[in-house]
Amino acid sequence: MLSIVSPSKAFELITKKCTKRVHDFSVLHISQSLGCVLAENVVSKIDIPGFDRSMIDGYAVRACDTFGASESMPSMLRLAGSVRMGESPVFELAPGECAFIPTGGQLPKGADSAVMQEYCQAPDSQTVIIEKPVAPGDHLIFRGDEVSSGLTLLESGTVINSGHIGAMASAGIPSVTVFRRPVVGIISTGDELVPAGSELSGAQMFDVNSDTLAACVREALGEPEVYGIIPDDADLLLAAAKEALIKCDMLIISGGSSVGLEDQTANIINRLGSPGVFLHGIAIKPGKPTIAGLVDDKPVFGLPGHPLSAFVVFKLFVAPLIRMMAGARKDERFPLRCALASDIASNHGREEIVMVKIEKREQRLIAHPLHAKSGMIGVLSSADGYIMVDRDAEGILENSEVDVYPI
Amino acid sequence: MLSIVSPSKAFELITKKCTKRVHDFSVLHISQSLGCVLAENVVSKIDIPGFDRSMIDGYAVRACDTFGASESMPSMLRLAGSVRMGESPVFELAPGECAFIPTGGQLPKGADSAVMQEYCQAPDSQTVIIEKPVAPGDHLIFRGDEVSSGLTLLESGTVINSGHIGAMASAGIPSVTVFRRPVVGIISTGDELVPAGSELSGAQMFDVNSDTLAACVREALGEPEVYGIIPDDADLLLAAAKEALIKCDMLIISGGSSVGLEDQTANIINRLGSPGVFLHGIAIKPGKPTIAGLVDDKPVFGLPGHPLSAFVVFKLFVAPLIRMMAGARKDERFPLRCALASDIASNHGREEIVMVKIEKREQRLIAHPLHAKSGMIGVLSSADGYIMVDRDAEGILENSEVDVYPI
Repeated sequence: MLSIVSPSKAFELITKKCTKRVHDFSVLHISQSLGCVLAENVVSKIDIPGFDRSMIDGYAVRACDTFGASESMPSMLRLAGSVRMGESPVFELAPGECAFIPTGGQLPKGADSAVMQEYCQAPDSQTVIIEKPVAPGDHLIFRGDEVSSGLTLLESGTVINSGHIGAMASAGIPSVTVFRRPVVGIISTGDELVPAGSELSGAQMFDVNSDTLAACVREALGEPEVYGIIPDDADLLLAAAKEALIKCDMLIISGGSSVGLEDQTANIINRLGSPGVFLHGIAIKPGKPTIAGLVDDKPVFGLPGHPLSAFVVFKLFVAPLIRMMAGARKDERFPLRCALASDIASNHGREEIVMVKIEKREQRLIAHPLHAKSGMIGVLSSADGYIMVDRDAEGILENSEVDVYPI
Repeated sequence: MLSIVSPSKAFELITKKCTKRVHDFSVLHISQSLGCVLAENVVSKIDIPGFDRSMIDGYAVRACDTFGASESMPSMLRLAGSVRMGESPVFELAPGECAFIPTGGQLPKGADSAVMQEYCQAPDSQTVIIEKPVAPGDHLIFRGDEVSSGLTLLESGTVINSGHIGAMASAGIPSVTVFRRPVVGIISTGDELVPAGSELSGAQMFDVNSDTLAACVREALGEPEVYGIIPDDADLLLAAAKEALIKCDMLIISGGSSVGLEDQTANIINRLGSPGVFLHGIAIKPGKPTIAGLVDDKPVFGLPGHPLSAFVVFKLFVAPLIRMMAGARKDERFPLRCALASDIASNHGREEIVMVKIEKREQRLIAHPLHAKSGMIGVLSSADGYIMVDRDAEGILENSEVDVYPI
């Protein structure tokens, strides 16, 4: 019999035992890659910019031709041509010459700097008067200044956002290799459960976990595979779990609330294969009756049947593992520093997860605890994040600063 | 000619002028609704729980039968039956009787409380010994305690997450009405632009904005419609914009960097229809040459051609409008309080948006400014959020606390 472990020990056990990662990948056009996990380092094949460019609208010049120029003693240069966007200038600047250049235009040969338009005048179509000196390199960006060919732009494991797509597009990278999402099977069990949309009869309850955990899996970068409600019968559950493990990379069985079902789930995981259950019970509230095991190298979780408990355990322990299996780097969602809106009672024996709703009041963030008074549905419908209250904590007073972890 | 306005004035103008919202909706099964915007208040049609339930594993009793019970003076009750999950008990408790009840089981008639299993012993199959008294209502949750029929669970405008799906599933709501995503047309223009995947020749550049803004539109709850690169020609641009406005709810034209293109975009918006351009120039860095107009009631933006400027202006001004058009309530992404990793230079004349990368160092969040040293691609590939540096600010010193807004 395994003993109950602390939440941090549970997390360590899960991440140490469950080391399998998704290796299959596909190649997508970058426009289709939003939210996918990079399966390769993205390396620039080009210098950026690809040529020496002007950063201003004005005139490309040889800096030495402008030395000492001022409003009262301007330099007078001959206009040798005009640089057009997207075209390499075909002319060169000789001493005493300049050329009109737009922002982003390619510097003509012979030029080594650019002068801003507002310091120039063009009395006729041949002549440009320069009223301010420039030094070589002024107002230019040189080939490769921003990115040189061979530089890594994005690392494998990046979860692609719009900025990443921008970086790839800037380097002209049209397509990208991304990991397949891990497939997570979801089984609900409990004789009292019926699907949403049914009429409730007797003391039945709706199956909440199938749809909720499926959405949680998607948020955690997985692909859910819902097997629906399996009757609370060891042989039926074993058969369903076996079938699911053929297709899925991970399996979640959320128990009904029947007495003894927790042990039944542990038995089923052990019967499915070895090494079997490695974690049974976490000293956390809610979520104590949580089971984790491995069947061959596939993680199998037994989550509490109570939807709020299953939700909390999923967010804390299962979601980070799915993200890891998906190849994503460490989850970098940052805690929000909030002021607590009302006292949290002292806590005895188990670390407690208190869900909160965040309110922005002027420049402050206020965290409203949702636990006791909101009920399960209030918590599920309103939670923005959670606070962790230490084991045997003395309670947290109103207005204390707390770290809220986004869900 | 319109004058340049402050960022806050620009935001106010945009949200005041652009009042059209998407009204079309569709009905989806809740399992398909993740990330959609609710187009109705979701109201519970049932009481939750639907019957008086036990919150513990133990025995349903009449509280008066346990008064004064203790280990040395236990109450001895007759076992009248056993409650099964999902079934309404067919028996009633007479005085002196009790019934086994699991967590979540329906309270039998006659019972008014439950005693935890650990305070009970069953010396034979007929008898239960109770060693602790309970008061009426102890360890029970009553019908409708959590949600009563008719209560609003979620409000119209909610962006549906896994918790919301959980709340709906708990109330047995199988499907939900959600808004259609607003369709946002994207036109890139600039004679120097070529699509990613092409070979660059001469002084050409890749079209970054088409793919980047499309991803930004998706992140902002819109549906992008990419029209690709249109040559920098007024008639061609006008024709493309006209066609796009037939299908799209909003149009974004991002200019190349050609001189004069900014004015050309303003002219095109005015030629497309009335009232035309209402905003031309924002006192912000980057992003000054931003244009906003209305053609009939459809917003049309002219964004700078420089990808980082277009990205910043999109995130600050366009994304919130798309979310509003999509029917979503005010964006509640909360600022992160971070310590600044390095000085930010003083600022003159325009409010400056400085993109930052956030690092978690022990219990502190550190914001690394990305502006000067990272280049455009560095910023796009690394930014987690941004700091707003006031107009004419004196600079911000290393280690100062700053508010970082997530992008």
